[in-house]
Amino acid sequence: MDAAGELLAERGTAFTLPDLARASGVATATVYRHFAGVHDVFAEFYQRLIDELVAELAGLSARTRGRRRFEAACARWVALAAGWGRAATHIRSADGFLERVRRDDPPTSALFEELAAIIEELVADEVLPPQDVEYAVLVWVTLLDERVIVDLTSTLGWSAKRVGRTLAESVLAALAVP
Amino acid sequence: MDAAGELLAERGTAFTLPDLARASGVATATVYRHFAGVHDVFAEFYQRLIDELVAELAGLSARTRGRRRFEAACARWVALAAGWGRAATHIRSADGFLERVRRDDPPTSALFEELAAIIEELVADEVLPPQDVEYAVLVWVTLLDERVIVDLTSTLGWSAKRVGRTLAESVLAALAVP
Repeated sequence: MDAAGELLAERGTAFTLPDLARASGVATATVYRHFAGVHDVFAEFYQRLIDELVAELAGLSARTRGRRRFEAACARWVALAAGWGRAATHIRSADGFLERVRRDDPPTSALFEELAAIIEELVADEVLPPQDVEYAVLVWVTLLDERVIVDLTSTLGWSAKRVGRTLAESVLAALAVP
Repeated sequence: MDAAGELLAERGTAFTLPDLARASGVATATVYRHFAGVHDVFAEFYQRLIDELVAELAGLSARTRGRRRFEAACARWVALAAGWGRAATHIRSADGFLERVRRDDPPTSALFEELAAIIEELVADEVLPPQDVEYAVLVWVTLLDERVIVDLTSTLGWSAKRVGRTLAESVLAALAVP
């Protein structure tokens, strides 16, 4: 998976299972035993990133609540995505986020549950007005897109801290309209 | 290009130049005379969509200004993107929007210029506080992403009118924070 991340960052999705075997220093046959094709590699890579994010978000719920939890979630998300870098920008699904939630795609649904719980807490704490939680989560995941985070850190040269704070403010302001 | 749009909507980017020739009813040699590879087809398809959007946005500047111009721009954008449908979701660049603007990618730069002019007018009219125009345009293009528009119209079943109005409100609220 580390080798897959390096190949994705360098070449995008234009690599083969033999390329992956070479990059990871294992036999081609071993790679073919694990994956039917490169699309399985992308799916597993994506699953790992989302698992990592979901684990971080779940960890926050024990320690913080309301606005602080929301801000900490954005900060951790940006820090993780800045670490993933360009690799993550190449494996974005062409299907909608809510479409994947409704068909119970496991990583997408797990992420939705974590984010929806935070939005519902913000509404319960009257930080945000009552609202359509599906739309609210869609706005949040859309603004914290990996490509946006890479653009702000690499193209504009912002620190991960500034990106997290600014995107958190933008999401909260967007959702403050009832 | 119509045939390319149909193939993109049906199969994503998984088609070849001979597939395109068959779908458009022209000789394979003719398709090879126009395109060196399918990536050229995607690039031309993307260029046409953005040209269409930029032409619509430029047309608005003669007729409206300020907040009305911003709202009309969002409405026209959503109506166009709803027409493009899923085809457009498959050809999104993995590179950042601002990264493409800074390297003077022609369609991206033309779109940036139109959107930046509208943001600057909103600031001049005091609808929005003074702000970083690059960040403001990034928030705008990110929330009006084709995948978001397809998700809201197809997954949630919202009308294009409702999507345009809601996204316009969210963008404006996000940018109202100084």
